[in-house]
Parts: sequence; C-alpha cells; structure tokens
Amino acid sequence: MLDWPQVFLGCTCSREDADIVVFGAPFDGTTSYRPGARFAPAQMRVESIGIETYSPLQDLDLEDMHIADAGDLALPFGNPARVLDEIEQFTQAIYAQGKRPFMIGGEHLVSLGALRAAVQKYKDLHILHFDAHADLREDYMGERLSHATVMNHALDLVGEGCVHSFGIRSGTREEFILARDKVDFYPFELNLADFRACLKSIGDAPVYVTIDLDVLDPSVFPGTGTPEHGGIDFRTLCAAIVEMRSLRIIGADLVELAPPIDPSGSSTAAACKAMRELLLAMGG
Amino acid sequence: MLDWPQVFLGCTCSREDADIVVFGAPFDGTTSYRPGARFAPAQMRVESIGIETYSPLQDLDLEDMHIADAGDLALPFGNPARVLDEIEQFTQAIYAQGKRPFMIGGEHLVSLGALRAAVQKYKDLHILHFDAHADLREDYMGERLSHATVMNHALDLVGEGCVHSFGIRSGTREEFILARDKVDFYPFELNLADFRACLKSIGDAPVYVTIDLDVLDPSVFPGTGTPEHGGIDFRTLCAAIVEMRSLRIIGADLVELAPPIDPSGSSTAAACKAMRELLLAMGG
Amino acid sequence: MLDWPQVFLGCTCSREDADIVVFGAPFDGTTSYRPGARFAPAQMRVESIGIETYSPLQDLDLEDMHIADAGDLALPFGNPARVLDEIEQFTQAIYAQGKRPFMIGGEHLVSLGALRAAVQKYKDLHILHFDAHADLREDYMGERLSHATVMNHALDLVGEGCVHSFGIRSGTREEFILARDKVDFYPFELNLADFRACLKSIGDAPVYVTIDLDVLDPSVFPGTGTPEHGGIDFRTLCAAIVEMRSLRIIGADLVELAPPIDPSGSSTAAACKAMRELLLAMGG
Amino acid sequence: MLDWPQVFLGCTCSREDADIVVFGAPFDGTTSYRPGARFAPAQMRVESIGIETYSPLQDLDLEDMHIADAGDLALPFGNPARVLDEIEQFTQAIYAQGKRPFMIGGEHLVSLGALRAAVQKYKDLHILHFDAHADLREDYMGERLSHATVMNHALDLVGEGCVHSFGIRSGTREEFILARDKVDFYPFELNLADFRACLKSIGDAPVYVTIDLDVLDPSVFPGTGTPEHGGIDFRTLCAAIVEMRSLRIIGADLVELAPPIDPSGSSTAAACKAMRELLLAMGG
Amino acid sequence: MLDWPQVFLGCTCSREDADIVVFGAPFDGTTSYRPGARFAPAQMRVESIGIETYSPLQDLDLEDMHIADAGDLALPFGNPARVLDEIEQFTQAIYAQGKRPFMIGGEHLVSLGALRAAVQKYKDLHILHFDAHADLREDYMGERLSHATVMNHALDLVGEGCVHSFGIRSGTREEFILARDKVDFYPFELNLADFRACLKSIGDAPVYVTIDLDVLDPSVFPGTGTPEHGGIDFRTLCAAIVEMRSLRIIGADLVELAPPIDPSGSSTAAACKAMRELLLAMGG
Amino acid sequence: MLDWPQVFLGCTCSREDADIVVFGAPFDGTTSYRPGARFAPAQMRVESIGIETYSPLQDLDLEDMHIADAGDLALPFGNPARVLDEIEQFTQAIYAQGKRPFMIGGEHLVSLGALRAAVQKYKDLHILHFDAHADLREDYMGERLSHATVMNHALDLVGEGCVHSFGIRSGTREEFILARDKVDFYPFELNLADFRACLKSIGDAPVYVTIDLDVLDPSVFPGTGTPEHGGIDFRTLCAAIVEMRSLRIIGADLVELAPPIDPSGSSTAAACKAMRELLLAMGG
Repeated sequence: MLDWPQVFLGCTCSREDADIVVFGAPFDGTTSYRPGARFAPAQMRVESIGIETYSPLQDLDLEDMHIADAGDLALPFGNPARVLDEIEQFTQAIYAQGKRPFMIGGEHLVSLGALRAAVQKYKDLHILHFDAHADLREDYMGERLSHATVMNHALDLVGEGCVHSFGIRSGTREEFILARDKVDFYPFELNLADFRACLKSIGDAPVYVTIDLDVLDPSVFPGTGTPEHGGIDFRTLCAAIVEMRSLRIIGADLVELAPPIDPSGSSTAAACKAMRELLLAMGG
Repeated sequence: MLDWPQVFLGCTCSREDADIVVFGAPFDGTTSYRPGARFAPAQMRVESIGIETYSPLQDLDLEDMHIADAGDLALPFGNPARVLDEIEQFTQAIYAQGKRPFMIGGEHLVSLGALRAAVQKYKDLHILHFDAHADLREDYMGERLSHATVMNHALDLVGEGCVHSFGIRSGTREEFILARDKVDFYPFELNLADFRACLKSIGDAPVYVTIDLDVLDPSVFPGTGTPEHGGIDFRTLCAAIVEMRSLRIIGADLVELAPPIDPSGSSTAAACKAMRELLLAMGG
Repeated sequence: MLDWPQVFLGCTCSREDADIVVFGAPFDGTTSYRPGARFAPAQMRVESIGIETYSPLQDLDLEDMHIADAGDLALPFGNPARVLDEIEQFTQAIYAQGKRPFMIGGEHLVSLGALRAAVQKYKDLHILHFDAHADLREDYMGERLSHATVMNHALDLVGEGCVHSFGIRSGTREEFILARDKVDFYPFELNLADFRACLKSIGDAPVYVTIDLDVLDPSVFPGTGTPEHGGIDFRTLCAAIVEMRSLRIIGADLVELAPPIDPSGSSTAAACKAMRELLLAMGG
Repeated sequence: MLDWPQVFLGCTCSREDADIVVFGAPFDGTTSYRPGARFAPAQMRVESIGIETYSPLQDLDLEDMHIADAGDLALPFGNPARVLDEIEQFTQAIYAQGKRPFMIGGEHLVSLGALRAAVQKYKDLHILHFDAHADLREDYMGERLSHATVMNHALDLVGEGCVHSFGIRSGTREEFILARDKVDFYPFELNLADFRACLKSIGDAPVYVTIDLDVLDPSVFPGTGTPEHGGIDFRTLCAAIVEMRSLRIIGADLVELAPPIDPSGSSTAAACKAMRELLLAMGG
Repeated sequence: MLDWPQVFLGCTCSREDADIVVFGAPFDGTTSYRPGARFAPAQMRVESIGIETYSPLQDLDLEDMHIADAGDLALPFGNPARVLDEIEQFTQAIYAQGKRPFMIGGEHLVSLGALRAAVQKYKDLHILHFDAHADLREDYMGERLSHATVMNHALDLVGEGCVHSFGIRSGTREEFILARDKVDFYPFELNLADFRACLKSIGDAPVYVTIDLDVLDPSVFPGTGTPEHGGIDFRTLCAAIVEMRSLRIIGADLVELAPPIDPSGSSTAAACKAMRELLLAMGG
Repeated sequence: MLDWPQVFLGCTCSREDADIVVFGAPFDGTTSYRPGARFAPAQMRVESIGIETYSPLQDLDLEDMHIADAGDLALPFGNPARVLDEIEQFTQAIYAQGKRPFMIGGEHLVSLGALRAAVQKYKDLHILHFDAHADLREDYMGERLSHATVMNHALDLVGEGCVHSFGIRSGTREEFILARDKVDFYPFELNLADFRACLKSIGDAPVYVTIDLDVLDPSVFPGTGTPEHGGIDFRTLCAAIVEMRSLRIIGADLVELAPPIDPSGSSTAAACKAMRELLLAMGG
C-alpha cells in the first residue's frame, strides 16, 4: 500500500543481494555556468515512475535484475577535493562487497572519485566516454579540480589510448589537439560502425562508462548547464547502449542533468530512460 | 473589427453548415503522472492564431472547408464513466446530424467516448492509432477506465486486426505480447512504406484516427504528461497525415497535449499545426 | 555519509518509536482547475532540507520529538471513493498503534478519509479548519465526492458547531448561508483574539486540524490550484499555530500545495515551515 | 452541456440586453520593458472560471447583473494612433447604445482611446486613476503616444484637478512636480480616509475608472511589465473598490496584466477578482 | 581581473581596429504574436560565455579575428519608421568606416534598416535569406512596416531573383505564389546540394545574410515568437554556414530569438553558436 | 544613440571621478541549496532600466551622484579562499583610491572579502546586517568558509557588539544562543524604533552595510536560494534604508538575489530598487 522509500525505478533489491548499487553524488560546485546538477538524483527518483521497468528495445526488465538504490551521499560544497574523497571511499566500499557502482551525478567532476576507486581495482581499465565537451583542460581559471578538467585527470589515471571519447563537439584548440594525440577520439556525430569497432578493440577488458548527458543534442536534452548544439539524438544513444551489452562494464555514471533548467521534465525523462537502458545493458 | 468568439483557426463555419464539428473534451482525471491535458482545447484556440490557415504542404486552406468549432464539453472530475457518457452522447448527436466529429483532448481515455459512438454508426470501423504507449492494460492500479487501458477497450470495440498502431515504444512485456497478437502493430519508428501498406489494407473502410501526440519525440513535443524519448519527428507525422487523404476518415481526435508543461508554447504550436493538416486531410 | 531514505525534515524516528506518523496522500483527481497537489509530499521532502529543524519562534526542535515518515500511499486515479477508503484504513492503522496521523495532501478531499478514521476513534471530535474556500457544496457538477464538498461531508461527520472555519473568502451565496448557519465561522481575515476565544471554547476536546494552505494569500503562496487573493499572511498563520499548543490535537493535515505551479519553490518552503511549526505545536 | 463561447466569468448577457459591455484591447506595442499585456483579455477569460460569480465582500453576484462580453478588438501592431482610433470608435458605439464600457487592456495607452470617447459624451468627466507610475511624461524617447505619457494626455482631456491619482510611487522628478501641481495626487500608500474624502469631492459627477494593476505590490501582482515595489495590497484595493459604489461610474478599465510574466496564474487570478469586484461596484 | 564591459564572446577588438562591428537592434514592436526578441542582444552577450571561441567544425577561433561589439542601439517603441531610420544611419556609419555590420535583432523588420544601407553601398546586392515564414505580405493588418512584410520590402530593394530564400514552410497562398514567381525559392527542407548550387550562382557578388532563426525546427529553437514545426536541424544550418565561406559577405544579421520564451537558455545557446560560426565564416 | 556599456542604472560616472565604485562578485560556490546568485550582477544591470534614477521617497536622483560601475570580478569556482582573496584585493584598491565600494553578490560569503578590506582601513568598524538566517555557524558540513558561517567570521573581525543584525528568523539553537550573547541582535520583525535606537548607538563610527536580500519576505522576494517565510516587507526595508542616511557608510553590499529562481523579474526589480535607495542613502 505504501511506495517507500522512493528508489529509482525498479531498484528495489536489498543492498545485500544486489549486484549493482545505484547512488547519487549531488555536487555541482565547480560548474562554471548554470548550476543545478546537484538536484538530479532526487529528481530522477521522483520522475522515474513515469517510465516502465520493461525495455521493448532490449526485451529486458529491471525487475529481473538485482539492483539496490543506496540513496545520496552527503557532500559538502566549496571543497571539491573532499567531495572526491567521499565518492572514492563509497565506491571502494561497493567494490569491496563484490558489487558494481552506478553513480548519478552531479557535475562531471564526480566521475573522478569513482574512477579513482575503479582504477585501483582494475589495472587495465578502459573508459568509455560520451560528452559534448572535451573536458581535457589542465586547469580552469587556475583550478585543477573542475568539471572542465575531469577527462584530463582520467587520462592520467588510465593512460593513452584507454579513454574512448564519443560525441565531443566543443573545446579549445589545445584540447582538440590533445584529444587527437592521446585519446581514442570520435568527435561530432556518433557513427555506430565506428562505435562497434571501438567496442571490439576493447574486447573483454574492464570498462567504466561515463555518460555526460550533454552529449545529447539540446533539442533532446536542454536541461543541462552548458548546452552545446549539434549533438546526437536519443535513438542513437540507445543504440550505442544496446551495443555495450557485449562489454564487461564494471561501473558507470550518468552526469550533468540539471533538472531546474528544464522544468518540463523532458530532460529528466531522457536521463531516466537512458539509465534504464544502461542498467539493463550492464547485465547480471 | 471584433475577433469573436475565439474558435480554432479557420473553424468559422456555422454549426448548421459544417461538415466537421470540432469540440474539446477537457478531461485528464485518470492521468497518472503529470496532469494538464484539460487545458489543451482552450490553449489551442488561443495559440492557433500563430499559424496560417493555408498549408503549403497540401496546398489546401482551412478557409475553403466547412468546419465549426462547438466549444468545450463541461465535464465533471472524479467520475470517468460519466465523462465518457457525455462524450459519447455529444458525438452521437454530431453523427445524427450527418457530420463528422473532431475531438481535442484531454487525456487519451476521452477517445473511448467518441469511439463508442463511432462504432455504433460504423460496424466495420478501423482505428488508426498513433501513440508512444501501448495503452493496452486490462486495468491500471485496479481501475478499468484509465488512459492506460483505452486501447484495450478499443480492441474490444472493433475486434482483432482492426486497430492499427504506430510509433509505440513503451509498455509492459504483457502489453507488447498482446499488441503483437491482436493489433496490427508497428512499434518504434514510423516507416512510411509500412504505413502506406497499412492504409492500402484498410481500403475504403471507415476509419477513426486517434493521435496521442506523445507519439512525437519529446524534443518536438515536451508538453505532455508522460514524455517517452525515441519518438517520431514532426515531418514524419505530417507525411503520414498527408497519406491519410486516401482514407475515408469518419472521425478523429488529438489527445495528450498538456500546455502548462511546455510554457514556451512550442508543443501547442505543434498540436495546432498537426490539427490543421489532419483537418485538411479529412477533406470535404 | 548517506542521507537516506529521504524523509521530511527531522522525521527520522522509527515507525515503532514514533508518536506522530507523517504520510503522503498524493491525490488530486477531483481538482477542478489547476492540478498538481499530487506532487506535494515528494517535493516537500526534497525541499524541507532548506529549512532548520529548530524553530526560534517556539524554541523547540523537531529533533527532540518522535516523528516517523511512513512515505506515500499508492493511490489510484479516477476513483475517489477507493482513494478515501485507502486513506481511512491507513489512518485507522495509525490510531490502532496508539499514534497520531499527520497527512500531507493532495487535494482537500483527502482529508475526508482521515476524518472518517478520526471520528470513529474520537466521538466528540472538533475540526479546526483553515481555508480560502468554503468547500461546503452538496455536490460539484453532480459529484458528491469533490474537493469542493469536503467540509460538507465533515459537517455531517461531526455535527453543527464542531467545525471551526477560519480565513474563508470564497464560495457561493448558498455556501456562505450554510456556513453562517451550521459552522463556527470566521470569514476573511484571521483575527487572533477571535481565534483564541474559539480555542478556549474547544477546551480539551480532541481536535483534528486541517489546513488548506490556500488560506494564505497568493502573494505568500501562489503554488496552489485555485489561488484566492485577500488571504492571511505567513506570520498570522504561524501565530495561530503557536496558539494551538494549548489544544489536544489528535491528527492534522496540510493540503493543496501544488508545487509545479510555483517553480520558485517559495510555496513549498512555506508549506514545509508551516508543517514544522504545526508538528512542534502538536507536542509530544 | 457546452460552455461556449468562453466569456469572462458571469458576463453571459446578450449584447442587446446588457448594461455593461466588456471588451478586450490586446495591445502592448509601446511597452518599453517586458511586453505581454496583449495576452491579458484571452487569459483572463480562461482563468476567470477559477473564481466564483458571488462576492462575499459585497454580497452581490455577477449573475444578477446584465453584462455582455463582446470579445477582443482586432488591433494592428506598430501604429498606436490607429489602435487608439479603433478603441475610440468601439467605445463610442457602446455609448451610442446607452451602455457602459469596461475595457481589459493591454498596456495603459489603450485607456486613452476609451477616455476620448468618454469625454465626448461626458463634459464634466473625472478620472479615478490607480497606478504605480505617474505616466505623465510629455513624450517617451521622442514618442508622444506611449504608455508612459497616457495620463499627460488624460490631463489634457479633462483638465486640472479632474484626474485623481492613487498609489503612484515612480516617476521622474519632473513628473512628480507636474503631478503635485495639476493632479489631485495621493502618492505611495492608499489611505482609505483620503480616498473617501476624494470620492466625496467628486460627488455625482461622471467618473471613468482606470486601474493600472501595477498599483498592487509586486508580491501580489508580479505579472506586469514594470513591477514597482512598495505598492498596495489586495485587500486595500478591494476596500477602495467597494467604496466606489457611491460613484457614478460611466466606464472603466483594467490594464497592464501581462500573463506570461507570471505563469503561476496568481496575477491573472488577482486581475479577475479585481474585475469582478469592480463590475459589481459599478452597479446596475 | 575584471570581465568588462560584457561583449559578445570574443568580440573584444576596439572599434577602430575592427573589421566587423557587432551591434544590437532590440526592437520587437510589430511582433504579432509572442514578443520578446528585444531582449536577444543583451541575453546573447550574457550567455555567450557558455560556449568556446574556437570552432572545431571550422578549425577557426574568434580570437584570431577583428570584431568589435558596439553595444545596442537605443530604439523607441511604437514608431517602426523611426526605428528603421536609426538602424539605417548606424549601418551607414559602419560602412563609411570601411567595416562590415553584424546586427543582432530584434524582430525581422530590423533587417530592413540594415538592408537599406547595404543596398546604397552595393548596387548588385544579393540577399541570402533563411526563414520559416515567407514574410512577403504587402501589408499586415493594414500596416506596411511589419515583420511579416520585410522580405517584400527586400524584394523591392534588390529586385527579382536576387533574394534567395531557404527553409520557408509557412505563409499565405498568395505569398507562396509570389515567392515562386520572384524569389529564388527553396521551401521546406534545406538541401545542401541545392544550397551549394545557389551559392555558385551568386559567385562573388556582394551578399547580405539574414537568418531568421525560426528557420530552425522548434525542437532546436523553441525560443521564438512564432514557432513553426517542420524546420531544419542545427547541424544542417551549420553546414550551410560553413559553405558560405566561399561568399563575399558584406553584412549579416540574426533575428527573432526571444529569450524569455525559452528560459532554459538552450535557444539562446543555439543563437550564440550560430553567430560564432557565421562570424567565422565571414572571414577577415 | 548607443546605450553602452550596460552599467547599473545611473552609475555612469568614470572610475576616476567616482565617489562610489559598484562591482559584481558573481560567486555562489558554497550555496547549499538552490544556486543562482552568481547571475545577479549581470541580471541587475539588464533589469535596472525598468526603474527610474529618481527616488520620490528620498527626493534624490542617482544622476546627481558620482557612481561608477566597474563590472564584475572574474572569479573561479571550487576555491572559496581564492575568491575571497580576489574580492579583498579589489576592495583594497578601491579604498586606496579614496573611494567607497558597493558590491553586488553572489552568495553571502562574498561579504567576507570586502569586510576584510574594510576592517583593515577602519579599525572601529561596525557592521549593519540584514538577513533571514543567522549565518553564525562555526562550520557547515566541516567547511569553515561557507555562506552559513560568514557572520561568524564577521564577528571575529569586528568583535562583540559591533555586529548589528536585523530580521533574522532562522538558525540552529546554538546560533541563536551565540547571537543573543555576542551580537546586537534584533530577530524577527524589523521594528523601526529599535532600528533608530541602534543607529543612534553607532553614532558616527564607520559602518559597513550588508543586506542579505532574503531578509525580505519570500512573498516580496522569492528569487533567493533559501527562502524563509515570515520576513519583512519592502516598505519597511526602504524606511530603514532612509534612516541610514544619518550613518557614515564606508561600504555596502547586496547579496543572495538568485535571478533564475524568479523568472518573473520581480525579485530582481526589488533588488534594483533597494540598491538605488541604498546608493542614494550613502550620500556624496
């Protein structure tokens, strides 16, 4: 009779029995333009009831999986280093229990906390990265920890060639030069043939998937801090996610939904559906 | 000098001389997520002045047709059965005068009232159905009358094979099984070749057209209660409508626009333009 | 490290140890104008973190009380009678455990479910009623169960003179005549001297408090379905609540916040603060 | 069964039998800051259903009066002179039929059209003016016809001492000097004792009432183009309107509601309720 | 340490050293439906910081160009003729200094002021026109100066065959007949092969580019006064702009962004990115 | 002909000739609930054109003063310590030129930077503080630099009894105890008699005025991150400001306007008008 507590759609498994542990990292303290990503985890839980647990695309149902929703981390504002420590420790604890993390951001910097934990456990880690922005700066206005530098850190963690970036269409000239040099880089449109080839090259190495949802075109997804037009459409993102079922995904995140920027709820609905598809693609 | 009363764009014919009678069914009482479809008819009348009566796509003009706007039904909330009775009776009266109904919802359940009247008059009725959701549940949270069950009722009214559904991409596993079994079912993308073949199979049987506007992708049409990403674009919907000129359309509705969810007015503009094209396609 | 599950501010007591049980009744199916009250309980939990547990006005802290948050009832749309049954049963269960209910609406009709349970337990029940609208109609568009009839039902439950209504400034002529005849009626402004006299007349009889938040002026509280200007200000409402500490409150509700109507969050903040003050005034 | 055509609340009298004729003047073409007042008449008709026809304050009901709603004038943009001519002619026609006009703006400049017609019929006309802004400029950016000059024109029409202005709290130093010199001027708060004295001085001379709704404080009425804080509250405005029942009101308008600026609908609700009270105060 | 004054992204060149002079024409006084384009220049400056100066598509950077931002013209409302004079004179002054104008509207009528100056300087001027609406009316509600007549004036200025129009999908039957007769007319979708052929036919004649941003589909660009569905997507517009690098562009404008209509900022971001690409395509 | 660059209303003096230097500190990186204060300075400049330079309340005009607008500081996110350093240095530079600073926040923490500079120059500094929240925490979630701790720092800077706080109605029990112990503390309503007595006690000591605009009631000022109901109205704030003309104000700030939270612009208008009155009260 009671729907309670409010978890993300279908993530009703107990923490003990879960294979995947969903948690929120509601931090957007380095966002340089429009903040609001801090509200994504709570809003996605509320609005996830608008979609079904069943995916006709994959013919799979969240109710057949073992996913727990652990709620949100309590994160301070104004101290990104401490925030990343909290996320890293929580992710480590999930790995220590033999489970896989699925983090809902927050801004993209939060991925760094989870990646630090992932790379400790998986030495040959690959990162599959969807984004509109390169996020490869050395620093942003003098700060090394920033949403605009997160993939630069990621590159340091896993090394050249182990970051695979899709959909990028914005950055400085220096970032594009660096991307073409050190990253397995597929800017602009997401070509599914290229994508499949990339997945094949990864093989069965462990993969962390980080989806900055602004990879979607702002027509689909206006609810984000720095919308960048010319992005991919929703069907293409879903098609890519379905392809990922061949991968060995050891962790994932969805970041940069900022619900207050799109009060229609349409962007949140897109995030929820992408999350359902990605959870299903992670398999059991 | 006076624009009055405010009717839907170009629907200035008197009730007596009309061939098509437009009316609103401002009810959204079983909407399970975001309500607001009750405001669609009034808002569409106000905003329809933003488009032209002339369609360059069809080279036809609403001013050359005979369409009356009868205004909105006064419908109670909290009693769906009574609401359907009111709609059925009003639609019967339109048929009794030898005219054709065009209903503006409201939620999708309102279609059932009009369909009951249509099936009484036309024994071999076909239903052409555009939607994101299957709407084929037996009941929803124990209620048999619901926006989520409307096509299950429709199937009962016209029988197997006489419901033709396009664009559906959301439902339970049970609904998809039922759809594949009993409905002439074309899920996901709307393929125009398939669509033409379907129309050909219908031939000159009488057809009621029900367009749940959430068949459109939320990028085009965020102003609806349960946006479902991965839908069709506006040009495809218009192309399909133009194809329908070959059909014998004996009634139609547009449902599930919820104007308050998209205050930019863009969703309402899409609904108005789709309505113009469909009215023109119904011919005279 | 985790804030979870998300409960209303300070309502962290276990269900067993609680004296007061908070729950949501997310139903607005008979709302005749702008719906949205169904979203109030979830939104109030999210936004309640914006205020403190401590009330400087009462010098009391929610953390010193024993309040559980039981989450939301799962309610069907389109069947008000069934909704009221569900609420009545849940409230009965709370009373059966020797605890007091505090319900977050939803539209005002939900109060009827809780009142039915309360009047079964407390034969000499008084109802303290804050509202902009009389809600005393016999029926609304032919429906007996409606937000516009709820106090007519309440009057039937507790009898003449046991409903005390403050702040009412809208209704039909018939409703005002009935109110002046059968209700302890204080329309328009809330005069604190009158209010104290009313409380004194109630003495230590059991009291159910129902606050339709639209009693507040729309300048303070625009986020409601039928805003009615000329209402009371927030300080006056709080002053009245503080006065209620002398009462024997056996149940309470707050209804008619519709968060989507005021996306600034200010109305939700007002509702949260009023709820904090009322919970504190209910004592332990 | 049909609510149609959509008129302002209770204004269902035929044009022939009416004593008062309501019409809209949807023009905001000289608005210098935020436009949107053009949408007021249509939106007020839609939202007026949210209030009752009965006023408990005056114990009067719109249903007992004889008021027609003639709809909106079709007005061009970009040519204020032509707009004023259209309004003047329509108002003349109302007077020629022995009826009284009640105009819904639009920006404040539209009052000038109605005033020109009124002053032709009533030589000793007084103007009762509520506003936040003096609107007494000679010109605005070189233009003589502007919302910012309308009362300067009005002063020319009726002469010194026959404009009575309440609530003004914004203007240039020159406008305040002019106001203190030529206008019966009551700036800042609306003092009811002063107001009664002013009404008494007018006696039974014919009065045109023009209410720029921004006289209300923006807390009550944010939905206007140039909100000016420090205004009057809603009860004070209603109290003043009730006082006006002693006047011989020969015409009235409500201007400067801009619905898109306040999507909560609260400002529109305030305008509708003020209009109800003013219509009732005009008597029959 | 100070970012000041706020100019459009990267337009930091002094007026003296500039090759291109950006300025705003914040006028929307003849807009017939939803106004708001007056706010575009100020809002685009504020939000342009959300994108980069570097275009990966063109591998060019605004920082390598010489562009000044001259701010906004101070324009009166209610007198379109005067507005056009002001724009014409300011554009003439830019040409007199040997520089090229880039105007940010405002409604589409403002283009006429700049075109008058351009045609004085360049006798064989071509106009490259992107729009959803034909804008070819003789008059609009009796007014010759209107956003709906601007291309009719333009046709008079440059003569048959010298206006090249892309993307048009709305107009009266008469406008479509006129367009097919006198304009180099490519309605509906923007076909890049057709576009290249058109550019080739223009050769090295001087070209003024006017982009009514409503040529974009409302899914991409809801923030405009009269959204017209069925438009082009953002990548297609950018591809067309890149093609224009072969042209001799002597002036350009972007019009009809109305920021208040899309508070998500996504439409403004689209306008800013289109402006960056067009500025880069104008070369040095 | 050009309005440029866009400065705050009437602040057109050159930096050299100015007595008061206005600047923006667009930082909200420690905001714990709804961010957005970073957008206040830019938005206030845009919207300040909606009010007049003349104050009828004070009979003074900004055009008669000498105020420069220096624009906004470029501040990094994610490093509050560096932000405060930047503000402190900029304020020091203003003092070094013999001028007075007027800072537009940003969140309340920015006041600390300006206060550090002020206290270096003025040893016996008093702080006049308007706020809804005590802001007296030692730390917030372990962080010493936070909007919630700013007045704790301020107390350290100027010592017991030299902070005078008005309007506070929210905080922990510990903060209220500290406030009553160390601060000249006037919680809840702002009583003008108390206020005058406080000003008298300050005499001609140098005073820094910091107005957290959330001291206003959310009915007046919903556009702030943590609205706290029960606040003061606009006239009371203005009356207090007028009283301050007797003080020797050596610096001031207005903080915590978050424009995106109130898209009606009404909150920004309140901030602009309060700023005009405070600038005028600072005298020349």
